Amino acid sequence: MAQRNIVVGQSGGPTAVINSSLAGVVAAAKDLGYDKIYGMHHGIQGFLNEDLVDISEYVKDKNDIELLKRTPSAFLGSCRFKLPKIEGNEEIYDKIFEIMEKNEIECLFYIGGNDSMDTIKMLSDYAELKGKKQRFMGVPKTIDNDLPITDHTPGYGSAAKYIAASLKEVIRDNSSFGIEKPTVVVVEIMGRHAGWLTAAAALSRGEDCEGPDMIYLPEADFDMDDFMARVKKLSEEKSSVVIAVSEGIKLADGRFVCELGSASDYVDAFGHKQLSGCAVVLTNKIQSELGLKSRAIEYSTLQRAATHLASLTDINEAFTVGYLACKAADEGKTGMMVTIEVVNRDPYEVAYNIYDIHAIANVERPVPAEWIVNNGTDVSEEYVKYARPLIMGELTPMMVEGLPRHLVLNKSTYRK
Amino acid sequence: MAQRNIVVGQSGGPTAVINSSLAGVVAAAKDLGYDKIYGMHHGIQGFLNEDLVDISEYVKDKNDIELLKRTPSAFLGSCRFKLPKIEGNEEIYDKIFEIMEKNEIECLFYIGGNDSMDTIKMLSDYAELKGKKQRFMGVPKTIDNDLPITDHTPGYGSAAKYIAASLKEVIRDNSSFGIEKPTVVVVEIMGRHAGWLTAAAALSRGEDCEGPDMIYLPEADFDMDDFMARVKKLSEEKSSVVIAVSEGIKLADGRFVCELGSASDYVDAFGHKQLSGCAVVLTNKIQSELGLKSRAIEYSTLQRAATHLASLTDINEAFTVGYLACKAADEGKTGMMVTIEVVNRDPYEVAYNIYDIHAIANVERPVPAEWIVNNGTDVSEEYVKYARPLIMGELTPMMVEGLPRHLVLNKSTYRK
Repeated sequence: MAQRNIVVGQSGGPTAVINSSLAGVVAAAKDLGYDKIYGMHHGIQGFLNEDLVDISEYVKDKNDIELLKRTPSAFLGSCRFKLPKIEGNEEIYDKIFEIMEKNEIECLFYIGGNDSMDTIKMLSDYAELKGKKQRFMGVPKTIDNDLPITDHTPGYGSAAKYIAASLKEVIRDNSSFGIEKPTVVVVEIMGRHAGWLTAAAALSRGEDCEGPDMIYLPEADFDMDDFMARVKKLSEEKSSVVIAVSEGIKLADGRFVCELGSASDYVDAFGHKQLSGCAVVLTNKIQSELGLKSRAIEYSTLQRAATHLASLTDINEAFTVGYLACKAADEGKTGMMVTIEVVNRDPYEVAYNIYDIHAIANVERPVPAEWIVNNGTDVSEEYVKYARPLIMGELTPMMVEGLPRHLVLNKSTYRK
Repeated sequence: MAQRNIVVGQSGGPTAVINSSLAGVVAAAKDLGYDKIYGMHHGIQGFLNEDLVDISEYVKDKNDIELLKRTPSAFLGSCRFKLPKIEGNEEIYDKIFEIMEKNEIECLFYIGGNDSMDTIKMLSDYAELKGKKQRFMGVPKTIDNDLPITDHTPGYGSAAKYIAASLKEVIRDNSSFGIEKPTVVVVEIMGRHAGWLTAAAALSRGEDCEGPDMIYLPEADFDMDDFMARVKKLSEEKSSVVIAVSEGIKLADGRFVCELGSASDYVDAFGHKQLSGCAVVLTNKIQSELGLKSRAIEYSTLQRAATHLASLTDINEAFTVGYLACKAADEGKTGMMVTIEVVNRDPYEVAYNIYDIHAIANVERPVPAEWIVNNGTDVSEEYVKYARPLIMGELTPMMVEGLPRHLVLNKSTYRK
């Protein structure tokens, strides 16, 4: 008798809750009686090599589901691979469908951001073109929060929570000195095109924390002279100055601030060109021109991997979008993505919908211009109202030997 | 009637639990019936300006004590100020004693590392020289773990826990890619002279994590050619390579690796000399010479401020050394520091002693040479056995609006 199988893949940059969505798909597939739950090892790129994982061998019981929810990064492995256009590249599409048919896979789920939703679009388009019956559903995931239609994306709330919580600690740390002159801390936060993550710095403000002195998003032009004048003034008035900047801030002429650090043909002691982030460029300038101590802090991959401080709201929503994607495909839907609608922001109440993938794939949603205030140096209270519910709640890590335990496919990264 | 008052200060780099020691001093002073509990605003430097805080106005009840334990960085403000030698500088010492006498302060407590213990030594020496009755006690605190006599220092366990937990997340993150070539992540950890913090990277190894591929401490010479050869080999065999390095690693000729990044007279687009950490120097070299993607991650001040992930063992010990310092001074002791003795490592059992400050001040304790193994590229299991108990347990943060709540002296850092 024929099997009814599904396959699920994870793609693009990991998040703290991408595995909660995987857990949701797995839980739904089990509830709906699918036979095999395959995972793509390293996304569609691994799938093309028929590198499949039988997830049931790793996720055996509810304890494993709970561990999976507490595991950062893509459990199945990820990839950055964009399918080529259909015309002239049919063989790659035929291969995907061939592997699906060989393994009796009815539905394919892809957990990811803009590029990954493009994969779902292309595959569902191809299925329609060729009259194939397989279904393809997108599960939203990106710390960047830049997918359209959905109110926000799973992964964002946890990254925002990490950014705001860590910033509170950084601000505390920097406040302990400054008896003579302040140290100017510049915190660099991910986001090349959209400033959602950097805006999360504003969430640190509260009864016990003044928050950052300035916040710079890539959506607004960065004015270097104005920036330096503001830093000078703040440093004269304050014992601590902390500034949050997006990695993608750029000047009005289009140059990224991070490019200014390697504008000359400098090579280091080994003859290598040296690249820096924008926070390093800014701290160098502050030290040299204002004679102030300045420290660059990059949250780097910590901000997308800090599952130990994930938002419970985010974990639950990530699980649910995975679960509902599986349910929708089971009901015959294809070429769609699950979206989150906020019915009420306070008290927080959401509804889930599914939406045509064509309106989502390859579309980037920036932070609304009206939320960027004070001459591009801050975000408004509207942003805080929008984002606060997304960082609420925690899921206690399972601590083993003093550290959070994870569920892993392969402990060793030695190639076989 | 004369008052019986005490004063307590915090000095040097903050830690995640420096305020637990403050809480311990405060709790003991209350239990012992002292009248006023003064805090030095910004350590001995603030004290010299008679900048005193009445701690009882801020720490009113047990809830405040609990919040204080959960607050990173120095609640009272810190400083980096070393007392000059007594000879020829009597006026500065006389001023300190004058302020103490004026405020009826019987005992002075200083929470800090090597330099702070020097302050206690100098003040108790001066008291003896001049026949003064005030007592001076040191409370150990440093993430560097480099104080002698004591088995370990409060602050170290929490920094080690953060380093190991974050490294597990970084390793998970990096393991999700690497389908073709690995990304080589170089994590830079604090420690200019002692490698205790970097050694903590080894704690990430366990049933669910292979841990870092190599660990480099400043106690061993850094061999650049050997390093590059090892990275090359690892990158050929693995899909993920993660290396932990101390900021203070140096070549056999004594040059710091971080200095190699600014060895030429490079200036950036603004004409400024650019400085980098050693991880940036190494990742540049890996990218240029091996053609591999490489990412530098600096834990920066996060590793000393991450109270949200502090070790309960560390918090409790920090509290206890503060409490016992106050008790010892009350019993007439002076010129000493509270030390931690590990009576049994598994199951973990400690005893507290007090020890002559002269044997402690200005002495640095490195990681034992026999714990540095594999040609200086790793630490031994003995280290792991030593450090594991120090990272055990957690203290649930008090979450308000989705973020850990802190107790703060001044929310605003605007100068009055």
